[in-house]
Amino acid sequence: MFREMFENVRSKNPLIHNITNYVTVNDCANIVIACGASPIMADDKDEVADITSICSGLNINIGTLNSRTIQSMLIAGKKANELNHPVVLDPVGAGASKLRTETALRLLEEVKFTVIRGNISEIKALASGSSSTKGVDADVADKVTEENLDDVVAFAKAFSEKSEAVIAITGVIDIVADSKKAFCIRNGHPMMSSVTGTGCQLSAMTAAFVTANPDHPLEAAAAAVAAMGYAGEVAFGRMDKMDGNSSYRNYIIDAIYNMTPEKLEKGAIYEVR
Amino acid sequence: MFREMFENVRSKNPLIHNITNYVTVNDCANIVIACGASPIMADDKDEVADITSICSGLNINIGTLNSRTIQSMLIAGKKANELNHPVVLDPVGAGASKLRTETALRLLEEVKFTVIRGNISEIKALASGSSSTKGVDADVADKVTEENLDDVVAFAKAFSEKSEAVIAITGVIDIVADSKKAFCIRNGHPMMSSVTGTGCQLSAMTAAFVTANPDHPLEAAAAAVAAMGYAGEVAFGRMDKMDGNSSYRNYIIDAIYNMTPEKLEKGAIYEVR
Amino acid sequence: MFREMFENVRSKNPLIHNITNYVTVNDCANIVIACGASPIMADDKDEVADITSICSGLNINIGTLNSRTIQSMLIAGKKANELNHPVVLDPVGAGASKLRTETALRLLEEVKFTVIRGNISEIKALASGSSSTKGVDADVADKVTEENLDDVVAFAKAFSEKSEAVIAITGVIDIVADSKKAFCIRNGHPMMSSVTGTGCQLSAMTAAFVTANPDHPLEAAAAAVAAMGYAGEVAFGRMDKMDGNSSYRNYIIDAIYNMTPEKLEKGAIYEVR
Repeated sequence: MFREMFENVRSKNPLIHNITNYVTVNDCANIVIACGASPIMADDKDEVADITSICSGLNINIGTLNSRTIQSMLIAGKKANELNHPVVLDPVGAGASKLRTETALRLLEEVKFTVIRGNISEIKALASGSSSTKGVDADVADKVTEENLDDVVAFAKAFSEKSEAVIAITGVIDIVADSKKAFCIRNGHPMMSSVTGTGCQLSAMTAAFVTANPDHPLEAAAAAVAAMGYAGEVAFGRMDKMDGNSSYRNYIIDAIYNMTPEKLEKGAIYEVR
Repeated sequence: MFREMFENVRSKNPLIHNITNYVTVNDCANIVIACGASPIMADDKDEVADITSICSGLNINIGTLNSRTIQSMLIAGKKANELNHPVVLDPVGAGASKLRTETALRLLEEVKFTVIRGNISEIKALASGSSSTKGVDADVADKVTEENLDDVVAFAKAFSEKSEAVIAITGVIDIVADSKKAFCIRNGHPMMSSVTGTGCQLSAMTAAFVTANPDHPLEAAAAAVAAMGYAGEVAFGRMDKMDGNSSYRNYIIDAIYNMTPEKLEKGAIYEVR
Repeated sequence: MFREMFENVRSKNPLIHNITNYVTVNDCANIVIACGASPIMADDKDEVADITSICSGLNINIGTLNSRTIQSMLIAGKKANELNHPVVLDPVGAGASKLRTETALRLLEEVKFTVIRGNISEIKALASGSSSTKGVDADVADKVTEENLDDVVAFAKAFSEKSEAVIAITGVIDIVADSKKAFCIRNGHPMMSSVTGTGCQLSAMTAAFVTANPDHPLEAAAAAVAAMGYAGEVAFGRMDKMDGNSSYRNYIIDAIYNMTPEKLEKGAIYEVR
């Protein structure tokens, strides 16, 4: 089924509006192209509604937020909701500063997200802080392991039910859940954490996948997560002994570029809980 | 003749002020160095006049414009005009939002540009919107092909006459025209559109070329366009079966770094219309 | 001794707050990871105090400063001082515009820096402009050579005494000095100047080194400078005939990733004056 999700990205070539941080923006643009979609980056409040309108999906990443771009995120998010465009939130660093946590929570209040993708700490910061998610027990561990996997899955499902978004928690094991069903994905390679922005890249790519598959947000997000992890494996397989994290960064994007829907279908390692 | 244009970049090593977007800025800096010039990036209104003054040329790219940087573009553009420095405009996304179209048009009104480089849609958005270009028939096709090439050439010449800038329209066939003469350049590779910012990179490099060849803006711009296309071919020739758009991005810049004026002269494929 | 400095970065994995320019920010993040530390990029005045507080060190780079980020640099710098965190200043382009020179000087007045790293022109602009450094003879040459090395060493020591910061002047020969002792480092490769931001990367890495070695700022900064130069040599050794400055950029970061403390100890070429 991941195959169909990916085929739709390649055949529909959706245009994705990204309001994202300046650290990893170039890699986000290139990976969106690599997977078969097209990126536009624009973050001024006076144009984001226009740009959102000509696109089919929106990716909001708060990585280097500031007062100017926060306003733009809200405007673009609401416009995307109005137009029924899928919207992805990457709450980078939620929990690390009051501004980030509050901005992420405000976005959750004012914008309906299709997918929220972050690491376990970021997702917990949202789940415990959000008034709309009161009652979600965010007291899960800070690292996902085989031992606590069921707890994290339950947490993800509960947060999905409250937020009405697909929740993608990425780490050693990735969990992509709606309120009823969770994909536990075991692709990836530890070295991916040595490249800045693999999470940002995944969020941008997730926006492409859910936009190309509007009726299957859960499966589309899971396919994007599996594609990223599988790309990390393929890329690692190319590593020469003098290669380091900078070459690895290139190889990951290259691997998405060369991945076929068939290869993803075969390479994806997951179970449903 | 492209050889001499390129030789002058390498021997004069001009310093180029870039006000450009944060998506592709690193690649722009590296390609400016690769071709033999030196980049400075600075976009605050309180320093752009100073920075323009110590440079020899200016590149304005509206890719991630905002109210703060628009002001800086106007200040820097006017200062460059005052100092008789060549100025390149890359109207990224003109036509895609009101803000972009209006900003590009305002820049055209208030700043004299040496070269305007964009794709056919962007250039059409400028030509049809600009009061100073009224009378230019922008009703050409949205894609340049062998069939409509003469029409696009005529359009480019007319817009050049009105705007008093060299017009560089890049795509499958590139057209670089002043009011009387047009270079139709057939270098390049389709995969170049899989790398974000090859257009931005070309505009930055064009600023280097016209700055090093102030008496030959048409030929200098055409040489830059041919160099970029030829680099795309050389880079593609290096591609390994696991390489994708991220490696290709590196190879294009590498190809400019290793290109000699002689190789450009031999590799350039063009005719004059 | 450089070995111990590097070992501490790898074992302590310090979290480094970077307020830096958008040109080279991605490379800065990746090289900080490559050397064994972790980067956070954040530049909004409403969150920099929070972010500085959860980090152990701070790197301030004025490369694409603006009125908004200047404020953030001051807030973060003061907070870091309050918390006794090491702070590195990279005065990119000091001397090139009034805004840059004045901002760098203001930062020097209001923030206590552990290390100031720049090229000779930038460091001279600070030394001659700063009221707190009056009496430092900045009338040294604009290029460090074997002939004027003793003069530059004396200048660096004098500026270190006045500024109470370790001074790192990088170029063909690198000088890292406190008021009494200077390391003259002869690692590096001329091609490093063909990659945008090797200086920025070094400053970010220096912050990691001094943070992991709080009692040895001079030796830690010298180790970072030697590591960068040595990486430039190792990376050049990998260059294929089609490789250019873009591949070289990747290879430098890769070389830091693969460098061991032992290799640095053996590869470092320096003398103490």
